[in-house]
Amino acid sequence: MPKRTTHENASCPVARPLDLIGDGWTLLIIRDALEGVTRFGQFQKNLGLAKNILSARLHALVSNGMLETIPATDGSSYQEYVLTEKGRALFPVIAALRQWGDAYLFDDDEVRARLVDRESGRPVARVEVLAEDGRILGPETTAVTMAAGRPAG
Amino acid sequence: MPKRTTHENASCPVARPLDLIGDGWTLLIIRDALEGVTRFGQFQKNLGLAKNILSARLHALVSNGMLETIPATDGSSYQEYVLTEKGRALFPVIAALRQWGDAYLFDDDEVRARLVDRESGRPVARVEVLAEDGRILGPETTAVTMAAGRPAG
Repeated sequence: MPKRTTHENASCPVARPLDLIGDGWTLLIIRDALEGVTRFGQFQKNLGLAKNILSARLHALVSNGMLETIPATDGSSYQEYVLTEKGRALFPVIAALRQWGDAYLFDDDEVRARLVDRESGRPVARVEVLAEDGRILGPETTAVTMAAGRPAG
Repeated sequence: MPKRTTHENASCPVARPLDLIGDGWTLLIIRDALEGVTRFGQFQKNLGLAKNILSARLHALVSNGMLETIPATDGSSYQEYVLTEKGRALFPVIAALRQWGDAYLFDDDEVRARLVDRESGRPVARVEVLAEDGRILGPETTAVTMAAGRPAG
């Protein structure tokens, strides 16, 4: 394995998140949380992860401000893990990754999990990068520039 | 480190990609390729990666059909690495991750790399998950269901 490198001082906002979600399990915990999983046992069952590893990942997600713990909604002594705004904001990232996996890593007739609009029951639209005026953008019609300040939108 | 697990048989299209891009360096190689980097030396300079590690990552990306090698466009004996359609299709994933990093992992006044529309010079719009009719969707207005067949769109 290569030496673990930190990207915390990177000026690239693609690199910095890798310290937080570069571990694949972390992304799958967020995926499950977005689908409503809140209990340690549920995460463990879904992910098939050893307790100590899952515990460390959940703890890191709380430390990083992506999950928070609340008392169990059923009044039991368990605690539940719920996404913060920061954690929830990964929804488009995970949806885009899901569509990429769906398009390129499955055989045509293979059954796979798919994200659908609850109202229509139809798959969500393809996640695209758009200009302010709605044009669909790609690598050739965009550029990366250095800037300070809060992002637009 | 936890035992390396393969997700190749997962029915979740968020999990399967982790075998291919779960390694953070791989995602940063794709990021650079999307910005037009094609040469081994350029990747190495940008990423600060040891040659043997970079070489292994590039080789895996070629094996996985995300990059292909072509003779150097300047007629030299070098080869260049260019994205396939499958590799290019990660553009929305990386753009969404970039916006998340920009929004949550930088101080307000910190300088960071930002994706802009070449035509207007303005930041790209926030990447959103949309319904077919254009409604913005979130975790509460979507569901994950099992389905076979090619994705829509």
